[in-house]
Amino acid sequence: MFNEIPNRVAQLRLFLQQRGLQACVIPTADPHASEYIASHWHARQYFSGFTGSAGTLIVAAEAVGLWTDSRYWLQAELELAGSGIALFRVGEEGVPAPAQWLSETLERGSRVAMLPELFSVEDMRKYQAKLSAYQISIETECDFISALWEGRPALSNEPFFVFDEKYAGKNTREKLAGIRQTMQRQNAEILLLNVLDEIAWLFNIRGNDVAYNPVVTAFAAVETERVLLFVAPEKLTAETKKYFFENEILLKDYDGFSEYLCLLHEKTVWLDEQKMNFAAYEMVVHRNKILSEPSPVLLAKSVKNSTEIDGMRLAMEKDGAALTRFWLWFETAMNRNGEKYVVLTELSLAEKLREFRAEQEDFSGESFAPIVGFAAHGAIVHYSATAATDSEICPESFLLIDSGAQFLHGTTDITRTFALGKLSNRQRRDYTLVLKGHIALAQAVFPAGTRGTQLDALARQFLWRDGLNYGHGTGHGVGCFLGVHEGPQSISPRENPVALQAGMIVSNEPGLYREGEYGIRLENLVLVKKCDFLEKQDFFCFETLTLLPFDQRAIDYSLLGDDELEWINNYHRVVFERLSPRLSAVEQDFLKEKTKRIDLCGNEKI
Amino acid sequence: MFNEIPNRVAQLRLFLQQRGLQACVIPTADPHASEYIASHWHARQYFSGFTGSAGTLIVAAEAVGLWTDSRYWLQAELELAGSGIALFRVGEEGVPAPAQWLSETLERGSRVAMLPELFSVEDMRKYQAKLSAYQISIETECDFISALWEGRPALSNEPFFVFDEKYAGKNTREKLAGIRQTMQRQNAEILLLNVLDEIAWLFNIRGNDVAYNPVVTAFAAVETERVLLFVAPEKLTAETKKYFFENEILLKDYDGFSEYLCLLHEKTVWLDEQKMNFAAYEMVVHRNKILSEPSPVLLAKSVKNSTEIDGMRLAMEKDGAALTRFWLWFETAMNRNGEKYVVLTELSLAEKLREFRAEQEDFSGESFAPIVGFAAHGAIVHYSATAATDSEICPESFLLIDSGAQFLHGTTDITRTFALGKLSNRQRRDYTLVLKGHIALAQAVFPAGTRGTQLDALARQFLWRDGLNYGHGTGHGVGCFLGVHEGPQSISPRENPVALQAGMIVSNEPGLYREGEYGIRLENLVLVKKCDFLEKQDFFCFETLTLLPFDQRAIDYSLLGDDELEWINNYHRVVFERLSPRLSAVEQDFLKEKTKRIDLCGNEKI
Repeated sequence: MFNEIPNRVAQLRLFLQQRGLQACVIPTADPHASEYIASHWHARQYFSGFTGSAGTLIVAAEAVGLWTDSRYWLQAELELAGSGIALFRVGEEGVPAPAQWLSETLERGSRVAMLPELFSVEDMRKYQAKLSAYQISIETECDFISALWEGRPALSNEPFFVFDEKYAGKNTREKLAGIRQTMQRQNAEILLLNVLDEIAWLFNIRGNDVAYNPVVTAFAAVETERVLLFVAPEKLTAETKKYFFENEILLKDYDGFSEYLCLLHEKTVWLDEQKMNFAAYEMVVHRNKILSEPSPVLLAKSVKNSTEIDGMRLAMEKDGAALTRFWLWFETAMNRNGEKYVVLTELSLAEKLREFRAEQEDFSGESFAPIVGFAAHGAIVHYSATAATDSEICPESFLLIDSGAQFLHGTTDITRTFALGKLSNRQRRDYTLVLKGHIALAQAVFPAGTRGTQLDALARQFLWRDGLNYGHGTGHGVGCFLGVHEGPQSISPRENPVALQAGMIVSNEPGLYREGEYGIRLENLVLVKKCDFLEKQDFFCFETLTLLPFDQRAIDYSLLGDDELEWINNYHRVVFERLSPRLSAVEQDFLKEKTKRIDLCGNEKI
Repeated sequence: MFNEIPNRVAQLRLFLQQRGLQACVIPTADPHASEYIASHWHARQYFSGFTGSAGTLIVAAEAVGLWTDSRYWLQAELELAGSGIALFRVGEEGVPAPAQWLSETLERGSRVAMLPELFSVEDMRKYQAKLSAYQISIETECDFISALWEGRPALSNEPFFVFDEKYAGKNTREKLAGIRQTMQRQNAEILLLNVLDEIAWLFNIRGNDVAYNPVVTAFAAVETERVLLFVAPEKLTAETKKYFFENEILLKDYDGFSEYLCLLHEKTVWLDEQKMNFAAYEMVVHRNKILSEPSPVLLAKSVKNSTEIDGMRLAMEKDGAALTRFWLWFETAMNRNGEKYVVLTELSLAEKLREFRAEQEDFSGESFAPIVGFAAHGAIVHYSATAATDSEICPESFLLIDSGAQFLHGTTDITRTFALGKLSNRQRRDYTLVLKGHIALAQAVFPAGTRGTQLDALARQFLWRDGLNYGHGTGHGVGCFLGVHEGPQSISPRENPVALQAGMIVSNEPGLYREGEYGIRLENLVLVKKCDFLEKQDFFCFETLTLLPFDQRAIDYSLLGDDELEWINNYHRVVFERLSPRLSAVEQDFLKEKTKRIDLCGNEKI
């Protein structure tokens, strides 16, 4: 296949050179601080060929590099091969940050092109601080992306829909009233929102503008008396227009956000400098007072109400039933595989998995691109099989499947690692150490005020004792029929000042990756809730929401304590009880076997 | 006893009023950011009567309050009774911070007296920011403390001595060379030091200016070509003068530090705004460039060299032998106590403990005021028995003893909780949950880069499961024949960006406090070291340094896993091996009994 990347990079260099610019920075970003971005903003991918969901491309006259984190190192190596683009492994010792690299690579007096709508205020400030120290300036007026990207996809004009209150649990008036109370406490007159899942949550709307995330491309402004939603008029239907009219939400064109910002003056404007794009910020900062704090919508959205929690629980049942069916199909197919009736590959499994999920009522799509990684591919943390990499599944090693669904009432995200064929002792030990960490976190009880950082080591402790670790966080927030990754909470070695609160949902996903061999990750979603078994009501614990057995064939029972075994047995009992009403008799038998109680006396331990 | 505090407060109010001042703030502080401060700076105690080692007194025209943290709430309640001073419990919900309280209590335009040498730059800035928002100004020129404190103790003129290189492991020239390298990397021309243990470490000197901390009251400046030590000339001896002369360290009077600062101009001056006092800072900030970072001495001091580690290990042996003797004496005396030959009280035990320690070679004093807390007194975290509170020890409940020694080669800090008489099931459960946390932390293995915050929950997890917790951190750094509390590392729920490094020493001291009933705390010092049993050399583990058995009578073995039992047995074996050569035959028999192996088959578990 002809690699067109070097040509695109050459065109970019020429374009910059003609305008007296020495480099440009292309982040993976849109004006909405999105993790998943609409194809209209896939510029980094267009110019680099790297398809991962995070990374920064810098094109300079003499050098071109792509920065990405450990999740994507292996993938980037493969995809950048032959492009002439150097890979910078973010987080590896001695690897300079992009701004640092620019300051070392460019001469003093150089000018770097950066599109201000693609950088948060904070990020742009960091570049400015670093580069200005080396007399390098940033040029924000040159839209090299629009100029050079042939066939750039337009923004979607697809209509969106109202998210029914029977799923949302709270109408937009109630939500707005709560947000305005918080604004009042902070003396903010206007709250500016650019983050799409915050806008979707606040207005109870959902759409299809971004892959996997049911959000709508829009901006919003909450004033003390008015509420404005900036969205392309083509996306509106009679129904949504009526909805906004009834809720007294003013509609403006998406492109009208800039004009609105330019007219603001002498207001106290709340925006989050970590999220708001620099272009928008520049339009308000000079004539208004800025209050930069995390958006009040962020925290409100993360604490689920009981309707949302019910919807999430229902989503887990449907998802678990679909996955049980998939697992049964897969095991049957693997057994036939010896007779060569079926060839199973990572891509075919992903497709089949989608089919089983799609059979479920209220299924609205996947919540992210499924990761189906056989053996060594499982060690690539965010692996996404392509036709070129697609592996045939053989009866050996591990199969890691990380996938999720969007239902109209909730979002799922689950990882299971399946044992194919006979495992080695080390493989079973590895699996069991990951499982022990998962169980330790699932069983954690902790006082109000505890941050995820404090709990993270519970999931790692057993791996650490073997000198092992994993390079990603242990838990991320999950939205309700919204983003599969959401803040503000997390469980990670990185400090995050946000305390876990009752109603928050986070993932519990320790892992272990043996490069070139296999990967293991075990992920359930858990709900933070008050510990009702304790007199003191200021202690929290987790309720595991996700429903699917762990593969018992991969467990080394000699490494488990009695309480860990009991946890597995209890969990498997709940899984069977909750899923079996949705399964056929054959499927129930299969699930019965997969959730069979491990007899405390029958294992190797005693 | 006549309470003279109301009178002192009244005098202070009159003094302030005459000068048009509406309030004053008296922190527990000296110009050196010390935790333990010389009596010359005990102003907060003089004006409030509260003897705890932390707290802030604010005297305003209409109100007077003392702010202190949970360690001292019970003690402060007792000591402030009848003084008219309100107690503000720092950390309790709804309790305003001192600056907040001032802004709410005083009228706009008010003036507050604060002595700038008693506040760090950071603290003063916070007061300034808060108060200026309410048009309240800070008056830094009025030394109300010197004016009103009758019989204020002078600073000590006692000579200090050179800390022998055979204990320090590194001479002052080597240390200075290392510090200057760090300064060069940071482009700093002058490093200003005001923290006494940093100065003592850097110059290899020790003294008696502060209770429990063998430090010398001084300031220091490290320039690229010169080194200056500012110390009262009366404190110098022929020997120390010779030592400084040989090491080319310029001596200046303690009071000459201000003059030195005022003459600095156009230099890049490294000081730590969290530690440097505001008075000194004000003298340099206007004509120099300030680099505010934690002092390079802080980190260098915390990573012990092998000589220091050997000295610490030796200190543990001597301390353990003394404590074993004390324990034997105590048990014997308790048995006699029934016959009323001896009356044992908290104070008499503390005195006896000191006697046993003082018998050890190279003993140089206690490393802090021992906490001997019987039953309910054990629940007062930093309890210090006084004649008024002194309790007779009865054969029931727990006795908590937290104490430590300074030897010429190392510092100790140990807490044991002894079972007196028959314990209830809840008491044994509580003790065992604390012990399980202690063991979990002691056994932790973790990768390089791990911060104490990540490990803290390991020590709390078992308490948390019972809805229990403790209000203090789990671990603090400990100096080598220096401060029993030192930074920069810690193990605490509070975020601390400093990663644990091989050579650092921290305490491992989970606890549990049942107010009005008893307190439990189990503390050993541990050394961070590379895990030699792992191939990967970037993993660390702890070596427990402290040597004394845990009281087996308090343990509920049914709550322990096999690995926990094994840890205790191994630890007790090491304790016996290391201590017995220093003990008599009778003492050895006693220790043998206290360290007897718990038979895995003999306990209630199987």
